[in-house]
Parts: sequence; structure tokens; C-alpha cells
Amino acid sequence: MQGGLADGRRKALPRMVKRFLAAVAILATGAAMGAAPKSLSELLAQSPASDWRALDPADTLYMEIPQGRVVIELAPHFAPASAANIRVLARAGYFDGLAIMRAQDNYVVQWGDPDEKNPKSLGEAKKTIAPEFTRSLKGIDFVKLPDRDTYAPETGFSAGFAAARDPKAGRAWLVHCYGVVGVGRDNAEDSGNGAELYAIIGNAPRLLDRNITVVGRVVQGIELLSPLKRGTGPLGFYEKAEERTAIREVKLASELPRDLRMPLEALRTDSKTFATLIEMRRFRKDDWYKVPAEHVDVCNVPLPVRLRKE
Amino acid sequence: MQGGLADGRRKALPRMVKRFLAAVAILATGAAMGAAPKSLSELLAQSPASDWRALDPADTLYMEIPQGRVVIELAPHFAPASAANIRVLARAGYFDGLAIMRAQDNYVVQWGDPDEKNPKSLGEAKKTIAPEFTRSLKGIDFVKLPDRDTYAPETGFSAGFAAARDPKAGRAWLVHCYGVVGVGRDNAEDSGNGAELYAIIGNAPRLLDRNITVVGRVVQGIELLSPLKRGTGPLGFYEKAEERTAIREVKLASELPRDLRMPLEALRTDSKTFATLIEMRRFRKDDWYKVPAEHVDVCNVPLPVRLRKE
Repeated sequence: MQGGLADGRRKALPRMVKRFLAAVAILATGAAMGAAPKSLSELLAQSPASDWRALDPADTLYMEIPQGRVVIELAPHFAPASAANIRVLARAGYFDGLAIMRAQDNYVVQWGDPDEKNPKSLGEAKKTIAPEFTRSLKGIDFVKLPDRDTYAPETGFSAGFAAARDPKAGRAWLVHCYGVVGVGRDNAEDSGNGAELYAIIGNAPRLLDRNITVVGRVVQGIELLSPLKRGTGPLGFYEKAEERTAIREVKLASELPRDLRMPLEALRTDSKTFATLIEMRRFRKDDWYKVPAEHVDVCNVPLPVRLRKE
Repeated sequence: MQGGLADGRRKALPRMVKRFLAAVAILATGAAMGAAPKSLSELLAQSPASDWRALDPADTLYMEIPQGRVVIELAPHFAPASAANIRVLARAGYFDGLAIMRAQDNYVVQWGDPDEKNPKSLGEAKKTIAPEFTRSLKGIDFVKLPDRDTYAPETGFSAGFAAARDPKAGRAWLVHCYGVVGVGRDNAEDSGNGAELYAIIGNAPRLLDRNITVVGRVVQGIELLSPLKRGTGPLGFYEKAEERTAIREVKLASELPRDLRMPLEALRTDSKTFATLIEMRRFRKDDWYKVPAEHVDVCNVPLPVRLRKE
């Protein structure tokens, strides 16, 4: 599959690539079943089916734009009210016909209703939502990264998402990594409602952590959003309506007939395979890598998603 | 100017933006000369001319692509041999007519000679260069960030570039932040020569640090490279020749008549203004930001570049 997973390519390398930078994408060199994996592709090929979880259709959004489909997984464990509001909006067809109206380089693309004078009704969705910037760390799974972080006391993964926690404060939150989807808001903390969303398309803007509600992440199709022409207005907003990207529709997978749902599955972040993936990243040394970092930060760990073999 | 500087916008905000995420771009609210700056724009507007340095034309490359001009500042303090080789190549017109042949999402764009069968002659340029992945930390300026880093013992800024150093090992190196330009290489450490270059267009791939030669950074026009359509071949290489982006020419500014050179200047990373900029980032709290990170990492500090007022 093509997708948010930069490292999941299966094709053998053409000869021409040899001369070039062979860095992040770890390449399949054939599935050496049982042997220690030499690449992410090999690792995933060897992984048991039980290390994967099917995406919940009720938490999966399909956003259709002219470039194709963007798939977003919601994060109700961290933002239950925002996720619920987005479900209400999607079911009502709220996003259909709206637009991506902002693309700011090394930062975000953002979508919603560009019509300020006659805004589309939110219908039964809430207009304000109490901030879900952080949550209690009680009751959530948390697979801690062995390496320290600089923005949070601890980082790791929770239910498939890059996360952080502060044991002293008793709080946990989702981290702004590449591809993360958040709830745009005004200055008031409760002013975000999910009708305007953004996706991170640049260096992890960790200063946003704990300042805004993260509600999910793009699990497929981020490469359709990240190349959008940058807006030339302030904050990367498009200056002309025709520069915007139309959103044909946003649907919950659960609203579609079963045979039209994509059988996407994500590598469980509490699996042995994922633990191995992290170690491979931390001690990356191969024909190309000479000096392993002996460290990885939470936003440099890939979160594999694939189409389930039927 | 439009440019690599995401935070340098001068325009007042249109009313419509109010409802949206007003995060990274700090906005000009009028130049309150003398008062404590409320935004990056204000800070820069108040800064003395002596806090800026003109880019050296001998270290400045203009890469012309159909989308416009990309300006790259070379880093001869860290990669003298690679920078020298690139100067030789540019003077000989080596890059003219070549192409951007790779765009891998959340990682790099890469350019060079796509013709493997009949590669363009490197002329008088060297074919191999001893690795310049790190250098002695003696003899370089280094403005240390007060915050810790996770990949290096210390990070900071040297001669305008994001840098790191290891006092115990006595080494310093440039850090792979967004917009950084490096020298593509094969597995052999000396196989990079500057004829193939890449620019970072995603989350800072810090695992590359100390594994490859960083030779500069894009100081203007990264937003012309980052939206290029992603390649669908392995590693993001384009599968068809017509998907590539043509490079019309790459010229050193010093090769152009003075009146055709862009009067670009960069904020000195050893200036008081830059020190203030760092503190504003670390303790970012305003009408929108509720919880300052009290920390910033080296790749989340903007490096302002502007056109000098003539």
C-alpha cells in the first residue's frame, strides 16, 4: 500500500537507487522468516497477526479530496468529546463540500468552512467543548520509550498514538508528531469543536503539546495533504478561493457498507514486534548507517498501518 | 518576503483567521519600537542592523526550478571540501538541466543527474570526498541552547546553522532540521561529492546526524520544494522521467553581476536579538498559548532571513 508509512515499501530497489541516499526507508531484502529482521519490512513480514489490530470503523474517517482518500484514525481515549462531535458532524455530512483553506509550510494544513458570512450549521454538534488537551493518566495503556524526551517527563505510545505523560501531575497527552490531527481553536480554550481540523505536515511542533486538543492522526494519505501548494496569506491561508482544495466528503467507515470499508490494521504499540521496531530504530547500524544514535524520540518512530490480507 | 521563514509575516491578520488555529506564526501587531516585543515580527523590526549578517555570495546558491528560485546557503565551516566541490560544479554549470528525482514524504527531496547510463561529467570536481560528518569543535563559534537535547550532549547554533557538539569527543556537527541540505552518498563514507544533494522536508531526521555530510540549508524557497508530488517508487524516487522537476540552473550568487544578487541577510545566531528569540520560544505564552513548554529544541528555533533594505 501507499500510505503514511514511509518505511513499508515492499519492492526491491532498482539498481539506479544504489548511488543515492538510502536512509530512512528500510528495504525489504527478501523475507528471511525466523531470522533476525534486517529491515522494518522484514520485521513486519515476520510479525504474528495478533500483533496487529483492525482499525475501529467507528473511529475511522475517510476524507475524499481530488487527490484521493485521506484516512484518519480518531483518538477517543484522549479526546472523547471532540471525537464524538466529529462523528456527529461526519454523519450529518457537515464536511461535505467544505475545503482545505490553509497550508503553511513546515507546519499544518487545515480544513473547515471557509464561508464566514454564511457558515454551515453545526446541526446537533456542540459549538464549544471543554479542552481535552491532556487527560488523567489513569486507565490508559502506556508503553514507555526507554529514551528521555525534552518536552515531557516521559514519552511513549498509547493505543497506537505517540503520547506523553507526567507522573507527578498525573496527566497524559498526545504528542504533535507528523501526521497528527488536531482541533483548531480560537483563543478561548473551549472554542474548538472539531468542525475545523488541522494535520501536521512539518517538523513536530512540540510547543503545541498541551495547548490544543489532538483528536487523531492520518494513517493513510498524508502524502496527499503534505504536497498541497502553500498559501501565501498570513498563516498560510489561501488568498483566493480557487486555491483551496475541495473536500468532496468526509465519512465514518462505520457508515459505509462493510464491503466498502478498507480493511486497515495498525501494528499494536503494545506488541513485541513494535518493541523490536523501536530497538531497531535506536541502534540503527547497517551498511549505510555508520553511527547509531542509540536513541530515538517519539516522533521518529514509525507507526505501521497496512491493508489486512483477506 | 515570502521565504523559508514561516514566522516573518508582516501583514495584519484578516478577521476570518481569528477563528482558526493561530499557533506557530507569531503575528505583527504593529511595531512597538522600544517596548518588549510581543511577536517575532516585532522583535525583528526592533533589532539593530548589526544583528544581521549579509549572506556571502560565494556561499549562496540560486537553484532555478519552474516553481521559482530556491536559495541555499553553504556551510563551509562544517563541510569545506564538499562546499568547495559544489562551487566547482555550480561554476561549471554541472547542475543545469539536471532534475529533482526524488520526493519522499516526511523525509527528503533529492536532486542530481538522473541519467545513469550516460552520466554528466563532474569535470574538475572531485568524485570522492573524505567524510565531513563531524568536525573538531575547536575554532568554531557555538551559541549553546540552554535546554538539553536527546541526540547530542549539547545543541545550539554555529555561524547561522543549527549545530550540536560533544565536548568529550571534541566534535561538532550540523543537525538535520527542516530545510537542511546534505550530500547524498552511497554506503561508502567518501562516496558523496555534492553532485547529488537532498533537502529535508519532514520531521527532523536526527538519526542521520553524524552519518552524512550536511553542507548547507535552504534559506529561501523551501516551500517550493516541500510541496513537490511524492514519488511512488522505492524511497520516493519518481517512476517516470516526466514526474521529475527540471533544474534550469544552479548558480553561485558570486558569479552573477552585483545588481542581480539578492541582498539577503540572516539574523546572527550570536546576536542579542537571537538570544531573545530563543527565550520567546521557550516561554511562549500569549493570548493563544496557555502552557509554555519552558523548553525548545534546536529544530524548533526559526532562523530568520530577510531582504536587506537598500
